[in-house]
Amino acid sequence: MKLVLHGYFRSGTSYRVRLALNWKGLAYETAVVNLVDGGQRAASYLARNPQGLVPALEADGRILTQSPAIIEWIEETWPERPLLPADPYQRARVRAFAAAIGCDIHPIQNLRVMKKLRADHGADQDGATAWARHWIETGFTALEVLAADAGGQGGFIFGDGPSLAEIYLLPQMFNARRFGVDLAAFPRLVAADEAARALPELAAAAPELQPDAV
Amino acid sequence: MKLVLHGYFRSGTSYRVRLALNWKGLAYETAVVNLVDGGQRAASYLARNPQGLVPALEADGRILTQSPAIIEWIEETWPERPLLPADPYQRARVRAFAAAIGCDIHPIQNLRVMKKLRADHGADQDGATAWARHWIETGFTALEVLAADAGGQGGFIFGDGPSLAEIYLLPQMFNARRFGVDLAAFPRLVAADEAARALPELAAAAPELQPDAV
Repeated sequence: MKLVLHGYFRSGTSYRVRLALNWKGLAYETAVVNLVDGGQRAASYLARNPQGLVPALEADGRILTQSPAIIEWIEETWPERPLLPADPYQRARVRAFAAAIGCDIHPIQNLRVMKKLRADHGADQDGATAWARHWIETGFTALEVLAADAGGQGGFIFGDGPSLAEIYLLPQMFNARRFGVDLAAFPRLVAADEAARALPELAAAAPELQPDAV
Repeated sequence: MKLVLHGYFRSGTSYRVRLALNWKGLAYETAVVNLVDGGQRAASYLARNPQGLVPALEADGRILTQSPAIIEWIEETWPERPLLPADPYQRARVRAFAAAIGCDIHPIQNLRVMKKLRADHGADQDGATAWARHWIETGFTALEVLAADAGGQGGFIFGDGPSLAEIYLLPQMFNARRFGVDLAAFPRLVAADEAARALPELAAAAPELQPDAV
């Protein structure tokens, strides 16, 4: 299947999809949507994704949007090297960990939200950064508790290898470092991030290694 | 299986789970977590859900959190009256519609985010309402385009009955009305909301019909 990932090197949701594609060993082309230049609002991109958000994955010409939906589709289409366990309750635990990032941290510290905060509510750079840190720290505090009870091995949150939990965690850790969050209080999250990034397939998905990195 | 839903009548994520449980015909008890009184920060609730967010679903004593994970678990455990189609690409489309609400609208206009906006960024009631409206209208504008292309029948977004799309849509429409969003620009979303709420199982999940409604 021919796969083209429309995304941006620094977008956390694009990074998630790169991680999932790489973990499954799937080759894909990169189509850069430069968020700083407003590429997501270009008519050519809006025709692919009316939401004007990255990423979008083109699969034999069909468009998939929304990283949670794209990643579930990847998992269903290529079940080898599973990102979710087989047991329904365990699947729910892994998905809940991912959703705590995907719903309750990432969207609130996203670029467009921080722009709105600055434009309409007078936040300066420091105020916007404090906002981002607040939501990351609040979320990570709960995730650290969940991780303590998740029974992972070798540093991973669940099981003995990467799961949906790490697919969501790595981009959020990248953002946490970018916004200067003190990670000392989150040793299990740091360990999972390190364990996953030690895997060459996942390391290759890092923002700084993408063709559009600046 | 004994199911206890820990939630709050007006919480959109609790409403989502009620809709899914009702659609599957599953009986459940309600345990009220009063968000206005800070019930989500009580030690007894944090022991169930360290995130301190509603809902949590107790299933024979085991705790599930995060509405997207809970609803996928319901769908996997009780596959009759499916909320997702069988085809993987169509599943991805339905999930993307749901995620556009669950990730990109709901969390940004959530109570805790609006509280933070007022506490740290000087927004008054009108400013907070304008913030909520902005994210709902931005999201709905894209969803209306997606709905036009989704091929649903009888008012529904996808297929000829409710799917994950309506499970996420109904609570977001409830919030849209609460914040005074003008819905005239979103006729397909209005039609889907009406079609779904015409079904007695789904109508029974409405916030105003819950035991803790005030």
